[in-house]
Amino acid sequence: MTVYFIGTGLIGGSAAIALRKRGFATRLIGFDTNYQHAEQALALGLVDEILLPNEAIKAADLVLLAVPVNAALELLPYILNLLKEDATVVDMGSTKNGICTEARFHRRRAQYVASHPMAGTEYSGPTAAADGLFDGKKAIVCEHRLSADFALNRALAMYRSLNMEVLFYTDAEAHDRHVAYVSHLSHVSSFMLGLTVLEVEKSEKYIFDLAGTGFESTVRLAKSSPATWTPIFLQNAASVSHALEKYIENLQRFKACIDAHNSDGIAALIAEANGIEKIIK
Amino acid sequence: MTVYFIGTGLIGGSAAIALRKRGFATRLIGFDTNYQHAEQALALGLVDEILLPNEAIKAADLVLLAVPVNAALELLPYILNLLKEDATVVDMGSTKNGICTEARFHRRRAQYVASHPMAGTEYSGPTAAADGLFDGKKAIVCEHRLSADFALNRALAMYRSLNMEVLFYTDAEAHDRHVAYVSHLSHVSSFMLGLTVLEVEKSEKYIFDLAGTGFESTVRLAKSSPATWTPIFLQNAASVSHALEKYIENLQRFKACIDAHNSDGIAALIAEANGIEKIIK
Repeated sequence: MTVYFIGTGLIGGSAAIALRKRGFATRLIGFDTNYQHAEQALALGLVDEILLPNEAIKAADLVLLAVPVNAALELLPYILNLLKEDATVVDMGSTKNGICTEARFHRRRAQYVASHPMAGTEYSGPTAAADGLFDGKKAIVCEHRLSADFALNRALAMYRSLNMEVLFYTDAEAHDRHVAYVSHLSHVSSFMLGLTVLEVEKSEKYIFDLAGTGFESTVRLAKSSPATWTPIFLQNAASVSHALEKYIENLQRFKACIDAHNSDGIAALIAEANGIEKIIK
Repeated sequence: MTVYFIGTGLIGGSAAIALRKRGFATRLIGFDTNYQHAEQALALGLVDEILLPNEAIKAADLVLLAVPVNAALELLPYILNLLKEDATVVDMGSTKNGICTEARFHRRRAQYVASHPMAGTEYSGPTAAADGLFDGKKAIVCEHRLSADFALNRALAMYRSLNMEVLFYTDAEAHDRHVAYVSHLSHVSSFMLGLTVLEVEKSEKYIFDLAGTGFESTVRLAKSSPATWTPIFLQNAASVSHALEKYIENLQRFKACIDAHNSDGIAALIAEANGIEKIIK
């Protein structure tokens, strides 16, 4: 199968490695809105050739859209216009409401599958692409009733090749609201934790010395790329803002307990937070 | 050497495993302010026997104090009073200012070494004890000039056996101020992230489904024990409150950018936070 990877970074590049290895993709064409990433992806052998969209889309059986979500929003109608009639385009962005709304009345909507593979690392670009990134993780598919059977089946086959479990979650708006809490808020929390520590701890050597395992894991996501995350926060602004409001309120409750030396209050909030261990093993 | 482990949980228990294995401790006596932990530690073979402090302290060459920091503060003067003249007590708590102040004018201050091994996991109790917990990590020693050479040497030998690098950081107050940012704030951030998500996401099944790797790593510390952490926050209240204030301010800045759809502002804050990657590899 000829697969056209629009976006050859962490997500697109890792998909290319796995889909080639499992024999799902036999001809791998790449493109990236960041031309340096395109050059790297070719040099690293993630894809066999780099072609511009107007040429490659016509040749592709499957177009994988793995660029920042603002670029995906712009590219999708263009891709659908050029796509072969039996071909499919799957987007892999972290927000689904904007792009689903954009696609809803496109005459070729049925060839599009809106998805969100829940996998990633704090690194980005083709050099961050890795075999096994998706292994055992989950991929959400939104508004699957608007996708044709052949398109949906191709997307499912691809996710099987990536060794992912697919979950249908029809409501794209609800998807975005949920990921605001379980993914986007984690990133804001980590970005601002990194920033706060950098501002206060002037001596970088010192941070490194004192960095026990706790700090490293909470601040890991603070290395994530602005190019990826800025458009995610903008597309999901209302939900992320709401999640942040709740988070700030809880931090203020905790701070009030500390300021009042309220031992029982602190212990109660921690015990409540411990409830997460039933969910995240 | 006879080592008395007061506290046989994650920290004391892991130390017992390593110190026995490396031949540093030949007789391992245990005690825990939580009697169930004492029973577990004995059943797991972390220590050879459980003895009450008034008996065991007199027999010990080294007392390792690894209980919650409020209990350590109360126990230290009592331990020093009973300690053999050539024996040493080392505490392993995450706060150093309170206990150093408490110990400063004790007639046997020189037999005490104030330390903080920067290692741990989100789990607690004897069942969480693990070989290798301390391997390659760093241990801070505060106010080392108030410790006698023989006491300091014994503590250093022990940390060598734990495979830890010791760093002297004289000023206990400054130590607490720094760990407020690099460790205690991370824990508050994670506790309140867990709490916020639990409050909003009523369906526990759903959180699990959507939990990509990002959420898991930022919320991991939210499993940490109230018994360990409540007294840490109380002993380091001023610094943790200050760190929280700065953190909340930065979250509010980020939220304001999102609310204003200020793309450049969001990208600039993320790029600033990315600075952490120079420090945490």
